Amino acid sequence: MQSWSIVHLCTYIGAPASEPSQRQSILERERERMDVVAAAATGYGGEEGVVRFGIIGCAEIARKVSRAIRLAPNAVVVAVGSRTLEKSRRFIADNWLDPAAVVAYGSYEEVLDDARVDAVYLPLPTSLHVQWAVAAAGKGKHLLLEKPTALCASDLDKILAACDAAGVQFMDSTMWMHHPRTAAMRRLLSDPDRFGQLRSVHSIFTFAGEPDFLENDIRVKPDLDALGALGDVGWYCIRSILWAADYQLPKTAIALRGHITNKAGVILSCGSSLVWEDGKVATFHCSFLSHLTMEVSVIGTRGTLHLSDFVIPFEQNSASFTFASDAWFTELVTGWQPLPSKHVVNTDLPQEARMVVEFSRLVKRIKDHASKPDKQWPEITTKTQLVLDAVKASIDKGCEPVDIAY
Amino acid sequence: MQSWSIVHLCTYIGAPASEPSQRQSILERERERMDVVAAAATGYGGEEGVVRFGIIGCAEIARKVSRAIRLAPNAVVVAVGSRTLEKSRRFIADNWLDPAAVVAYGSYEEVLDDARVDAVYLPLPTSLHVQWAVAAAGKGKHLLLEKPTALCASDLDKILAACDAAGVQFMDSTMWMHHPRTAAMRRLLSDPDRFGQLRSVHSIFTFAGEPDFLENDIRVKPDLDALGALGDVGWYCIRSILWAADYQLPKTAIALRGHITNKAGVILSCGSSLVWEDGKVATFHCSFLSHLTMEVSVIGTRGTLHLSDFVIPFEQNSASFTFASDAWFTELVTGWQPLPSKHVVNTDLPQEARMVVEFSRLVKRIKDHASKPDKQWPEITTKTQLVLDAVKASIDKGCEPVDIAY
Repeated sequence: MQSWSIVHLCTYIGAPASEPSQRQSILERERERMDVVAAAATGYGGEEGVVRFGIIGCAEIARKVSRAIRLAPNAVVVAVGSRTLEKSRRFIADNWLDPAAVVAYGSYEEVLDDARVDAVYLPLPTSLHVQWAVAAAGKGKHLLLEKPTALCASDLDKILAACDAAGVQFMDSTMWMHHPRTAAMRRLLSDPDRFGQLRSVHSIFTFAGEPDFLENDIRVKPDLDALGALGDVGWYCIRSILWAADYQLPKTAIALRGHITNKAGVILSCGSSLVWEDGKVATFHCSFLSHLTMEVSVIGTRGTLHLSDFVIPFEQNSASFTFASDAWFTELVTGWQPLPSKHVVNTDLPQEARMVVEFSRLVKRIKDHASKPDKQWPEITTKTQLVLDAVKASIDKGCEPVDIAY
Repeated sequence: MQSWSIVHLCTYIGAPASEPSQRQSILERERERMDVVAAAATGYGGEEGVVRFGIIGCAEIARKVSRAIRLAPNAVVVAVGSRTLEKSRRFIADNWLDPAAVVAYGSYEEVLDDARVDAVYLPLPTSLHVQWAVAAAGKGKHLLLEKPTALCASDLDKILAACDAAGVQFMDSTMWMHHPRTAAMRRLLSDPDRFGQLRSVHSIFTFAGEPDFLENDIRVKPDLDALGALGDVGWYCIRSILWAADYQLPKTAIALRGHITNKAGVILSCGSSLVWEDGKVATFHCSFLSHLTMEVSVIGTRGTLHLSDFVIPFEQNSASFTFASDAWFTELVTGWQPLPSKHVVNTDLPQEARMVVEFSRLVKRIKDHASKPDKQWPEITTKTQLVLDAVKASIDKGCEPVDIAY
């Protein structure tokens, strides 16, 4: 017996999820999709008609993005560069890349010097971003940059200036932005009759790092990812808050007390409150020390949106959120009316592949039609980094308020 | 077509919900239950065997609690007192109380002087609590006190001292504490193999007051409920945080910037972060200016609990929460494994009636067996009020940290 009593209304958006395939391992699914994707790529005009990616650095996240590039019908991987040729070759073999079509390089430079490479995906440790992102732009490569994009906003400015000068597209690799669920939620938040005006946002992203992670991962090393949990998971919280606020920057960030650092001073857990001039407020909490949690609550004068898997949807092909509008209590305050509704959004392509599709679409416009690079994505990145900087500065100043200027 | 894909496991606890009756109006249900409840009360030995309540003040919330007393098999309403006899009589007539069995009084004193009255339910404006709660205890009446229990902890101390001196039971009227869902959640949070150690709690309770509420309700009046939204809805947030922390008091409260007050200085919206010595942290946000929202996220080292209706369950007879334990990402970080489970807890009696049952059980022990009053409930109240005081003090001090001493 099941009573789905709290689910009042359920809307389905997008293609129906292919349920049985969700139970297959990703590797099985992968093999099945290879042919489909290859055919789709051909539909875009073969290798010449698609955006040709070089991957710089064989980080774990590069495995996911290399698959995303293969799933995207308008993109293809043509080169992988690592500090050793052996590592690049192994990455190609381990990730279903065709060794006959993908060149392995033993250095990052060689990827940038490869004329076939249109765009670079750059998942190196944050401390190396300025150097290699600027170098990539300098070689005319479009840039898909892993987050956090830089150690500070002035470093990001250097990267964006280089992209500007070269006329190449910049996008950060915040995958959830590209899930159709995100667009569906935006439609509701933009509806004054259903959501009203935004009043507050509350975002949480935590995961419990294993002892080995907390000791050895690049994300806890001051010389590699000095921003720690704030840069890695806090990035997403800040982005979700800016997204909900339609990218209006808060006036002030005030770090919450009780942040935790490791011996090297790298943040393992922290939070912040954010305040806007018009009275909106937000909070976030991010941590490497707590169980996997990804909550966002967006509260307006007339509506509330909530989801519990905003960064990585629980499932690849289907994601949901709840939305309540003009809810009030039943008689004698013994229940709610109406109940929140659950909205399910299906997607054929996972969000990371949709990100590659969108990035590649923008790159193709530039390549084929001499368009200007899209400015929206770098602007969102800049705002995220500015808030991140302010939170970091507040932590460094003993949780004093830090104003955010754009 | 429905795919309840995010719901991995569903457990049902308690009696099955009576679905059709949920669609009846409360008034219809009420009439049907009258006979059942009367019979049940008789089963407890008639009026002599049950706890006899006097209600002091005919606030809107008193309607809900008078019904709860009628639903509770071990309690009965015997007197209603208001500032006018007319108002008390109307309350009795409007709330299915039997005019032949329930005495209407035109003052609060007369309720306290009625020897039939064992216990008083006191929903007066907060500023009147000390006077009338102390008077009730002085007359030997057990005390079920509406929240916020006092304007400050020292006022609450006076109330509790009077209860202590009189040997009467004290309980605050925080209804959700008594829902069986709360006990079910506690079992999970207490399980180190499923939840681990508590790391953070995040609580939100907001509702959007209508213009008339924001202008005229006692909860926005400095002489009646000077704590405003902090006292009314923040009370529940603070309680949820203390509950999750197994009533371990935080060391420090730091109000969040951006609180909003009305012209009279009464808080309409505010928040706070709370910090414990062992590294635990919490945040809450409460407001009269945002859409109805009641979220609690409790995050441990190994588990996460979330619910979206912690104060007033969406439905009266069935309430749910989600719990995830040892969740991690699927291969290539494209999903979660295991998925959070949804737990549904059914209850025959609504939470407010369960509160009355528990309170009356404690009162009966004292009456019939000369037991000492239970100390757990007043202790929980005191801690809640202490945190509330600290948050208020922090707001008054420009969001400086305020230490909490017990």
